[in-house]
Amino acid sequence: MTAPAQIQQDDALSPAQQLWTISADDMGAVDAIILERMHSPVGMIPDLAQHLVGAGGKRLRPLLTVATARLCGYKGEAHHKLAAAVEFIHSATLLHDDVVDESDLRRGKKPANLIWGNSASILVGDFLFARAFNLMVETGSMEALGILSNAASVIAEGEVQQLASLRNLAMSEADYMDVIKAKTAALFAAATEVSPVIAGLDDTRRAALRDYGLKLGLAFQLIDDALDYGGQQAALGKSVGDDFREGKMTLPVIRALAKADATERDFWRKVVVDRDQDDLDLQRAVSILRKSGALDETIQMARRFSVEAIEALDIFEESPLRDCLQNLAAYVVSRAS
Amino acid sequence: MTAPAQIQQDDALSPAQQLWTISADDMGAVDAIILERMHSPVGMIPDLAQHLVGAGGKRLRPLLTVATARLCGYKGEAHHKLAAAVEFIHSATLLHDDVVDESDLRRGKKPANLIWGNSASILVGDFLFARAFNLMVETGSMEALGILSNAASVIAEGEVQQLASLRNLAMSEADYMDVIKAKTAALFAAATEVSPVIAGLDDTRRAALRDYGLKLGLAFQLIDDALDYGGQQAALGKSVGDDFREGKMTLPVIRALAKADATERDFWRKVVVDRDQDDLDLQRAVSILRKSGALDETIQMARRFSVEAIEALDIFEESPLRDCLQNLAAYVVSRAS
Repeated sequence: MTAPAQIQQDDALSPAQQLWTISADDMGAVDAIILERMHSPVGMIPDLAQHLVGAGGKRLRPLLTVATARLCGYKGEAHHKLAAAVEFIHSATLLHDDVVDESDLRRGKKPANLIWGNSASILVGDFLFARAFNLMVETGSMEALGILSNAASVIAEGEVQQLASLRNLAMSEADYMDVIKAKTAALFAAATEVSPVIAGLDDTRRAALRDYGLKLGLAFQLIDDALDYGGQQAALGKSVGDDFREGKMTLPVIRALAKADATERDFWRKVVVDRDQDDLDLQRAVSILRKSGALDETIQMARRFSVEAIEALDIFEESPLRDCLQNLAAYVVSRAS
Repeated sequence: MTAPAQIQQDDALSPAQQLWTISADDMGAVDAIILERMHSPVGMIPDLAQHLVGAGGKRLRPLLTVATARLCGYKGEAHHKLAAAVEFIHSATLLHDDVVDESDLRRGKKPANLIWGNSASILVGDFLFARAFNLMVETGSMEALGILSNAASVIAEGEVQQLASLRNLAMSEADYMDVIKAKTAALFAAATEVSPVIAGLDDTRRAALRDYGLKLGLAFQLIDDALDYGGQQAALGKSVGDDFREGKMTLPVIRALAKADATERDFWRKVVVDRDQDDLDLQRAVSILRKSGALDETIQMARRFSVEAIEALDIFEESPLRDCLQNLAAYVVSRAS
């Protein structure tokens, strides 16, 4: 369970890159499974899947699975298939989200549904989701299957709740927390909880790793929601404003609304409820969110979850790998400042 | 394993209704699980699921699971959860099909996506699909999980292949058979194969029950595709012509095309490839399909699969339940004549 020495020395790498370096062999095996299992004689499936899954991407969730499996001293190979399953579940939800969000502005590449159509995105998403379960069955771990299938239904519940809250100024902070816990943090938590389970560790360590994933996921989503308004410093760029345009209620808006005067409430009603937005409205929204402290508060909350994620791993013995996982939790919130 | 005596006497009931009568207790338990597990604190989920799943419906697939489990002498309770899982998988695919088909003409009720929107149908479909796996995990049968998760990925593959073949006059009969085997027969086959597995029967009986479900599913889909053109005798009605309007290539069209003269080929190109259809075109299509013998041939093929389904059960001891399952196979093809 010792990490290659060089990763401690290379400070130029981010914690995520360091984790990749430590886990290079494992992630190579995961990649091979992903590429093999997205194959189908029905050509549209690998074409579309390749666009989304094959092109690399962060692979943050499967990386968490293989790294925590190592942290747990796991010596088998089931973590590779479980990590691939986690990535397939994530990819399936992305494909369906693209259709649901009706966005042509998703960060990075053009969404698959704008190339192959909504129908193909829905059905290939279903295929990847089913393939995730094929992989889990092959590991033979019913407990891991229980954890991931439960996460899958919780994710869908969160997505529906988010849909039902679109353009609803009355959405509470508690509802928002429920949504991000379900739609984002549940899969992070499952991705890290399966590791102690397949390694046969005790319930304390299982709970600790679940907690690490959950808090990391919450921090990750809060930062994502802050970054959608440019974070605290970044200039407005192309990747900003998706949530705003969709009328998605996120913590920055909920916090700003709580302090809004009558003029600001009218503004939010116009842009969120009526989705009546012109070019200057996003800039005005960002200005209100910064001035009110709502963006700062969102980032602060992410930092608190990040600290809790770091502390959750304290019961594991110190090691370069544990350091790396803890650094990762600090790193995800550093994106916003 | 004896059925209530009265079902043998009541000839007014169809085989499907007789199977319901024999399986009333089992199906009551399945219904209770379905209603309980479609529940969620996110209100849109039970509302939409109730519209599709809760209102009863034929429940043909779960009925096959509980009836074949009895045929196998199974004494436990796992068949109830597996049957509910089968219905959830079927419901999830229906919700996604509604979005994919863009149909406002689906038989029976108004499709859920036209009431709650495409996004809700996609996400609630995902939820039901995940819940199906939750239920399977609870049964503890990894073999049943393998069978049903494999069916789920095959179904998605078949749906994508069908999508890729839309409006393609060159679709071969072999491709069509692949599509209906995947999108329809695979779930019937899985629904009946899980029974000998949980009952611990030998591989011969497992293969026989899988074969029964597969052939029944093929017969069922062929008849459905014939009925979309009114079958051989029925008058044109509201429930006819969905496939035609979508430009879906089904066996009747493939067979008619093989015998078409130049004028008819031009007609099929206009209505299928260009989807240029006026009010009289469906009547003209039906007329060509009848005259060419394509509808008859489709029904004949369904009858052959129905006979194979019946014969597959011959290795089981004669019983009222076996009779009923065999009669059902004959019954599904009787719908078209």
